Amino acid sequence: MAGPDALNPVAERLKDDLTELATIRAPESGGWTRTVFSEPYRSARDWVRARMRSAGLDVHADGAGNLIGVLPGRDPSAPALMTGSHTDTVESGGRFDGVVGVLGALEAVRLMRENGIRLERDLLVVDFLGEESNDFGLSCLGSRALAGELTRAHLDRVDHEGVRLGDRYTGFGLDPSAVLGAAGDFTTNGLHRYLELHIEQGPVLEEHGSAIGVVTAIAGIRRLVADFIGRADHAGTTPMTVRRDALAAAAAAVLAVRQEGCGAPVHGVATTSRLDAEPGSPNVVPARVRMQAEMRSVDVGWLSDAQRRLAQKITEQAGEFGVDADLRWSVDNDRVPAHADVQQTITSITDALGIGWEAIPSGATHDAVHIARLCPMGMIFIPSREGRSHCPEEWTELDDILTGVRVHTETLIALDRSA
Amino acid sequence: MAGPDALNPVAERLKDDLTELATIRAPESGGWTRTVFSEPYRSARDWVRARMRSAGLDVHADGAGNLIGVLPGRDPSAPALMTGSHTDTVESGGRFDGVVGVLGALEAVRLMRENGIRLERDLLVVDFLGEESNDFGLSCLGSRALAGELTRAHLDRVDHEGVRLGDRYTGFGLDPSAVLGAAGDFTTNGLHRYLELHIEQGPVLEEHGSAIGVVTAIAGIRRLVADFIGRADHAGTTPMTVRRDALAAAAAAVLAVRQEGCGAPVHGVATTSRLDAEPGSPNVVPARVRMQAEMRSVDVGWLSDAQRRLAQKITEQAGEFGVDADLRWSVDNDRVPAHADVQQTITSITDALGIGWEAIPSGATHDAVHIARLCPMGMIFIPSREGRSHCPEEWTELDDILTGVRVHTETLIALDRSA
Repeated sequence: MAGPDALNPVAERLKDDLTELATIRAPESGGWTRTVFSEPYRSARDWVRARMRSAGLDVHADGAGNLIGVLPGRDPSAPALMTGSHTDTVESGGRFDGVVGVLGALEAVRLMRENGIRLERDLLVVDFLGEESNDFGLSCLGSRALAGELTRAHLDRVDHEGVRLGDRYTGFGLDPSAVLGAAGDFTTNGLHRYLELHIEQGPVLEEHGSAIGVVTAIAGIRRLVADFIGRADHAGTTPMTVRRDALAAAAAAVLAVRQEGCGAPVHGVATTSRLDAEPGSPNVVPARVRMQAEMRSVDVGWLSDAQRRLAQKITEQAGEFGVDADLRWSVDNDRVPAHADVQQTITSITDALGIGWEAIPSGATHDAVHIARLCPMGMIFIPSREGRSHCPEEWTELDDILTGVRVHTETLIALDRSA
Repeated sequence: MAGPDALNPVAERLKDDLTELATIRAPESGGWTRTVFSEPYRSARDWVRARMRSAGLDVHADGAGNLIGVLPGRDPSAPALMTGSHTDTVESGGRFDGVVGVLGALEAVRLMRENGIRLERDLLVVDFLGEESNDFGLSCLGSRALAGELTRAHLDRVDHEGVRLGDRYTGFGLDPSAVLGAAGDFTTNGLHRYLELHIEQGPVLEEHGSAIGVVTAIAGIRRLVADFIGRADHAGTTPMTVRRDALAAAAAAVLAVRQEGCGAPVHGVATTSRLDAEPGSPNVVPARVRMQAEMRSVDVGWLSDAQRRLAQKITEQAGEFGVDADLRWSVDNDRVPAHADVQQTITSITDALGIGWEAIPSGATHDAVHIARLCPMGMIFIPSREGRSHCPEEWTELDDILTGVRVHTETLIALDRSA
């Protein structure tokens, strides 16, 4: 067996990987941009594929476009251990979201091989296709397909250029039928556990001085699209008292959504991201406004109560403005708990290494949400500076990444042995 | 002289004119659509030109594209009397806004000629080019040019298709230099008085049962473009307490603007017509919002006070959300009072005819705002059903139009004789 410090990740090696991958990006966009189906994304994944090979993995791409590097275990018939994340980014994003999970897993593989550690099970290191939410309103393309949650209807969605998702797959060299069939490819021996290392994308770990976050659950998301229907009137001639101003009603709803979020238990949030007013002419009282909002929490009871309270409040307030409100709620994803045993394994290892940790829910969605359909999952978070993410300012200190990879590596080894 | 009923407008003739002009409109748009520079507008003005000729007017177009029909008076050296309005519409507009002022003036001319009434002064009946606010953010193209208030900088503005206003003029067969030079064409003998008949576009006359509104002043307009600058954060991971949500700050501002309008003296109004949030993605806290608002009143003191109060309140509220507010105010037009003598002439005639009237400010802008630079002006309003305007539901009863034309005709005759 390796000595106590043998599984420490090699700082220079990991730093070089992070730096090199960061150079592959869309030159015309700000920050670090590698959106799904783009040319920079294609180049980045060629680079990932080569790095997987140099780490000693057998690499293939599945029907859904996921890059899978296999480190064969002693028992080819045992359900496999899976880890991974993604290397796509949002427009004008950062260098760490997703990337630390993929490059960290490669470093774990290198450490295992260098220290002669052979797992019982196959270890699958996955770079999932297109995790970030895209123009099709769909996140986690690759993990969703693996979990059998990508449908033919999804492929018919069109982006803002009017191109079908199915045709984007084809353009990227993927057969849409194979994409839909990818779930079946995966069930030879089944999966044992899934573990994902990721940046927090929030400020909690940094504020509390915790090096590691042990994810308890991934928040459920309720989305709201509300249409406020008032009446178009001349903005110069129509007295305030007889107006049916759809934008005034929508503004009151924005504040109600925020208030609901502020009253939420810890880690509950509520956000309005846009209001589109028609006709939008300077001299016309807005007749219609479409509002786009969401609430997230790991507390399913709060989500349901908040939805009920908001529905009532928004409708009542709109009525006071003489405006009708048509509210359409949808569940983007239900709350997905991390498996208790996986959480327990992470905390034991972190304690044994003398590293500070705290339990933390994830407000963001991750590939782990979908892989949780296939096997028990767990996630390890590391701090994000000032909680910034999905922006060029996104930053995690190399020391924090090294700590995360250390815990991640040891946890993979422990999970390999777990029942 | 004509008998007491001789100057009653002929219902069928006026109704036919209204009906015929209403048929000329963009077939693909809703309501009645004849926007400036469009083909339906060109056809409509050919029709107006022909109607002016049949009414016995000498017709020409000036350099700015205004159609001018001249009824020569006894004294060609006397400053002329001017009346008119416009025949363009907003997208999906109505059949009466502007149109009753042009067709009503033609009926006035026919009545004078049929009754052998010859004015001392030339009477100019004008169909002003493009009164409605357009894609260039500029209303009253024709009257603005006549008043020398159209500039070379205006011609460089571009519409949403990226075409310059100057090039739109050229495409409509007008020479941009002649447009800018049109003000000079007009000063041979100067103007004596300007009188415009128009629908109210608000609900006041109908509510009060007044057949005629005698306009006291046209409201001043202050416009506000406010940029709210917060910070883009992940909507799932960023706690409510550390957010700098630009849309929440903008929503509070919308309600503040409305509240200011509701506290205004009679005929003061305040409207927010749109909010544009960036990035607008469902999972990102809005980083920037642009707000477009306006206030109108004939009470200049209130306008200034309200602007000061709103500037303070919007900035303070935004600060509470951790958001910076950058407010840019502009004066779209100052309050323009109708001339006391012209108001007096209208009320005397209305009283003499036993018609109910009330003094009323105009919340909407009209060509009269610009012609007021050239001579004293006055306006006559007639009721709008339920105050609706700039929409297909815009409606004024034929009887109300006939009453308006009667008062308008007699007032023109009286103004011709005034000092």
